Amino acid sequence: MIETIRSGMPERRWLHVQGVIETSIVLARRFGADPAKAELAAILHDLAKYWPVDRMEAYIREEGVDLDVLGYDKELWHAPAGAYAAAKDFGVTDAEVLDAVRWHTSGRESMTLLDRVVCLADYMEPSREFPGVDRIRELAQTDLDGALTAGFDSTIRFLLDKGKRIYPLTVTARNGLIRNTTTT
Amino acid sequence: MIETIRSGMPERRWLHVQGVIETSIVLARRFGADPAKAELAAILHDLAKYWPVDRMEAYIREEGVDLDVLGYDKELWHAPAGAYAAAKDFGVTDAEVLDAVRWHTSGRESMTLLDRVVCLADYMEPSREFPGVDRIRELAQTDLDGALTAGFDSTIRFLLDKGKRIYPLTVTARNGLIRNTTTT
Repeated sequence: MIETIRSGMPERRWLHVQGVIETSIVLARRFGADPAKAELAAILHDLAKYWPVDRMEAYIREEGVDLDVLGYDKELWHAPAGAYAAAKDFGVTDAEVLDAVRWHTSGRESMTLLDRVVCLADYMEPSREFPGVDRIRELAQTDLDGALTAGFDSTIRFLLDKGKRIYPLTVTARNGLIRNTTTT
Repeated sequence: MIETIRSGMPERRWLHVQGVIETSIVLARRFGADPAKAELAAILHDLAKYWPVDRMEAYIREEGVDLDVLGYDKELWHAPAGAYAAAKDFGVTDAEVLDAVRWHTSGRESMTLLDRVVCLADYMEPSREFPGVDRIRELAQTDLDGALTAGFDSTIRFLLDKGKRIYPLTVTARNGLIRNTTTT
């Protein structure tokens, strides 16, 4: 499975995947998620990243559960397409792992601990470079939800700067993290 | 009705309402909305702004159509409370006018021309001062949707800066304006 995934992406993207694997394991241990599930979700998370758009769309339509995403940026499509491919083509059956793959880019309303670990690892793995990433890494030492909120903030600011539409689920995901922080 | 509304707010807020009235009429003429409806919606838009929170909540619960908003910032509540009060207490029956009052703060998915005029006037009337307001006024010379998008952008950035939750409808409203711009 790893060889199939690795051969389906450029070498630099595989370096990113390795960074997400290592970071997911570290974050899982730090915040009490299952490191083995975090590792598997990280291995799988970008498996559809370099697929032709038509193939991503075909997978999303065949599964039929994330059709809304087809009205938004194609950058979001590899996550649900990859989750479905993990189940259909690689026989992954762990629902928590599949969810962490499915929601690793957009987030979702009530993110599980595993969702949050993999999503944050994708923002902050060592090869990532964007404005604010150091602050995210700093927060991630102690504050999973604060760090992930800062990650979503950076995505939303990027889309505002570009004049692009914002996927509503990302806002809902960020709202959920802030609600967690302010009510507990 | 005007005297009741004026006596229910501080003098500085009445100056803002006058600014929104004048600006709504100008924008309605510029972009082809009905100036009389724009004027009426502008007169009404902040009628519940200085109500006690309990009264806003009671109106929203009694009407029962905008209950979601009660889970978000209280700054949003005066708009649906005011729309219901306009109908219930002042006998306003024009659905377009009532909608423009109801959605003037949050926006909504498919904003009518009147919704957009009143919402934009509220952002840019002459007494408003915030980062980016001059750019909004400049865009409003020719581009209703572009100016209102810039208004929503400023709200979303403000909430990101403050670490506060973002009302999803505002994002959906902004997405709708961008979709309009890019597909026509």
